[in-house]
Amino acid sequence: MKIVLFRFISSLVLVAATSIAFAQNKIVVFQSDFGLKDGAVSAMKGVATSVSPHLKLYDLTHEIPAYNIWEAAYRLEQTVPYWPAGTVFVSVIDPGVGTSRKSVVLKTNNGHFVVTPDNGTLTLIAASEGIAAIREINEAVNRRKSSQRSYTFHGRDVYAYTGARLAAGVITFEEVGPLLPNEVVKIPYQAAVLENGKLKGNISVLDVQYGNVWTNISAELLNQLHPQYGDLLQVTFFHNGKKVYQTVAPYSETFGAVPEGKPLSYLNSLMQLSFALNQGNFAAAYHIGSGSEWSVEVTLFAKK
Amino acid sequence: MKIVLFRFISSLVLVAATSIAFAQNKIVVFQSDFGLKDGAVSAMKGVATSVSPHLKLYDLTHEIPAYNIWEAAYRLEQTVPYWPAGTVFVSVIDPGVGTSRKSVVLKTNNGHFVVTPDNGTLTLIAASEGIAAIREINEAVNRRKSSQRSYTFHGRDVYAYTGARLAAGVITFEEVGPLLPNEVVKIPYQAAVLENGKLKGNISVLDVQYGNVWTNISAELLNQLHPQYGDLLQVTFFHNGKKVYQTVAPYSETFGAVPEGKPLSYLNSLMQLSFALNQGNFAAAYHIGSGSEWSVEVTLFAKK
Amino acid sequence: MKIVLFRFISSLVLVAATSIAFAQNKIVVFQSDFGLKDGAVSAMKGVATSVSPHLKLYDLTHEIPAYNIWEAAYRLEQTVPYWPAGTVFVSVIDPGVGTSRKSVVLKTNNGHFVVTPDNGTLTLIAASEGIAAIREINEAVNRRKSSQRSYTFHGRDVYAYTGARLAAGVITFEEVGPLLPNEVVKIPYQAAVLENGKLKGNISVLDVQYGNVWTNISAELLNQLHPQYGDLLQVTFFHNGKKVYQTVAPYSETFGAVPEGKPLSYLNSLMQLSFALNQGNFAAAYHIGSGSEWSVEVTLFAKK
Repeated sequence: MKIVLFRFISSLVLVAATSIAFAQNKIVVFQSDFGLKDGAVSAMKGVATSVSPHLKLYDLTHEIPAYNIWEAAYRLEQTVPYWPAGTVFVSVIDPGVGTSRKSVVLKTNNGHFVVTPDNGTLTLIAASEGIAAIREINEAVNRRKSSQRSYTFHGRDVYAYTGARLAAGVITFEEVGPLLPNEVVKIPYQAAVLENGKLKGNISVLDVQYGNVWTNISAELLNQLHPQYGDLLQVTFFHNGKKVYQTVAPYSETFGAVPEGKPLSYLNSLMQLSFALNQGNFAAAYHIGSGSEWSVEVTLFAKK
Repeated sequence: MKIVLFRFISSLVLVAATSIAFAQNKIVVFQSDFGLKDGAVSAMKGVATSVSPHLKLYDLTHEIPAYNIWEAAYRLEQTVPYWPAGTVFVSVIDPGVGTSRKSVVLKTNNGHFVVTPDNGTLTLIAASEGIAAIREINEAVNRRKSSQRSYTFHGRDVYAYTGARLAAGVITFEEVGPLLPNEVVKIPYQAAVLENGKLKGNISVLDVQYGNVWTNISAELLNQLHPQYGDLLQVTFFHNGKKVYQTVAPYSETFGAVPEGKPLSYLNSLMQLSFALNQGNFAAAYHIGSGSEWSVEVTLFAKK
Repeated sequence: MKIVLFRFISSLVLVAATSIAFAQNKIVVFQSDFGLKDGAVSAMKGVATSVSPHLKLYDLTHEIPAYNIWEAAYRLEQTVPYWPAGTVFVSVIDPGVGTSRKSVVLKTNNGHFVVTPDNGTLTLIAASEGIAAIREINEAVNRRKSSQRSYTFHGRDVYAYTGARLAAGVITFEEVGPLLPNEVVKIPYQAAVLENGKLKGNISVLDVQYGNVWTNISAELLNQLHPQYGDLLQVTFFHNGKKVYQTVAPYSETFGAVPEGKPLSYLNSLMQLSFALNQGNFAAAYHIGSGSEWSVEVTLFAKK
């Protein structure tokens, strides 16, 4: 009987502990342009840990170039989908701190939350995951105690604090604040389109570590040109509509398909058309940048 | 009966699991000048995890400029207050490794612990949070096993090891080692004072990512000049007592209160007087540095 | 009776919770050449967290110079031993992505796991910890769902995914894939040897933050020259066998044993012969690099 009771209780404990552990799967991922040289990121994590020591705190990046909202938007689009539903992202790229931009929490159709100033940061993730709802943060209640006199570190006192309370279940999404209309502030950019056999798209971002050039042209759109590996693509790069560089880059399955130092076209890890030099730095070599003001045109130049 | 027992046991499990989880809220925050390019930080975390896998390990920063004790001191003062009481900080900026500087653990009056060489690193946090007690690390017992022949990586073998054991409850604070007198090694610097209508203070640090200049002049002290937003402050910057630059910067609630590229005075997130260019880099533009040898003088130049 | 039952159950709960917690001590440590500026590291951690939110995710470094397999190998050797047995390392320095290099998991004789392309990354850790077994990752089952069309981000879709599943116990080591012969791809380098009173060795790595020069010559080997602190060592540095610089550096217990700016020989935290300038940058001053193509020769020049 003792043994049976033991086994019975053990099972209960296992079941209960599992469900408790699951309830404590409360993840916050931080992004900012603060860099890692000072204490700003750590202060945000300290505030979050003070809300609940059970949170798991991770980073997207803190090396967004200062005030670069476009890149903030891109990093969210690139990364958010790989995290579990329910993850709360706190993104603080906020050149307009102290102005009238709204502080919001976006809930996407995939169940991700993004806490951020609504200044364009949500442009791409709102488009790719869809908007379930947006709420404006009610700072009368969702603001760290004793922070009322501080006017410049919303990242710590409002965004990290609210993100942590939401992730920890201290507040519900409804308690963030009032519902806003289902739209976000958007940065204009060249959408990916196919016109008369010519692909147009935006240079979303550089793969900075390697100098690869990433566009917003999807595999699906590219495939309407029916390229095969080895076919040559002609690519023209524009900055504010002005031609900067033109090259011919074979469409390749692997970097090793072209000689060292030679250009190639390929699908990056987001399945979007990209350009690289095999073991080289394409962007640096040809002075290519990225952002809303950069674009490309691509045509099928020659079949293999 | 079975149901009742089930409910009874479930409640027990929840209570027990909660208290266990609380007991496992054991946080270590690391700071160093090691950078993130090699394995030193990871080795410290590996040692801490080997002490207890239940610790939560975070970072303050590892980008303190090499041997810059002043900046180590400042980052602690800036960040420690935002973490829960009981958090253990391990700070390893140690130009005197191998010399006679003491290895200590400070317990502040707010319940934070700092494990560090006592070389000036504690100058500011000891002043701001107060000293509850300081103990010298007894390396005869508080040193990683099999590390006796290693003379240069105290960060891993003594500081990370002792911090982790303290945070995990393997040792009590008393077991760190013998009590020292309630004083720390201090770096001299210009205290914040108001003399004959002139504010004097230290340039504690640069907000490196943006080039903003932060002083140790508190809002309380500044308010004795009764500045209102829009009033002009005249600010003079000194290096080792020699005048480097002088400007007039309106006292502003937000960066957006002055045109892009123009200087402003404001209260930073620590509620201390600071100087910036709106969307520019003040420190780089006027060659302003920070540290114990930098100071400012500020007067109320003109009312709005 | 109620009290007794309570105590009995409480004990059970504690025992069970402890063993559960131990079973959840599931650690993954990531290394790459991705840098921290984009979302690649975060995407890997998102994938790992999606496998199991109970994993503890840490970093070795993500600042390995692009494609530098030697440094990847060195950082593993330097760091892995400080982590508990059972820790899973995911190392993604992969210049040959898309080529025929094998994706493997090494289990060392000390119980550490390394998930990596077998491209030389395992050269040093396989030698120092020994090979318990190596398995090739069977990508037919160990690959993130819906990633089949992506050819370039094995780090996320194969390595992080497999490492996380292994660490979480979703798969056993056996389920990684088929056993390979007990050997790894090796990068050639100067082994540490003593010949006719002359020590020869490799410059494994630079301690980049400080510019110190680290060799693979162990304390044991050095001690065969019977150096005492204060004795002078003559050191010659070679690149691809060509002499680059020669100096005399006293063998020192501490950096402070020589004047500021002067060279010294010492044992680093891995107990290997190293060279430094006290509070200076040896490597920058004398243009010394590191890697498989750099070597040193050391002789005992003069007794103290």
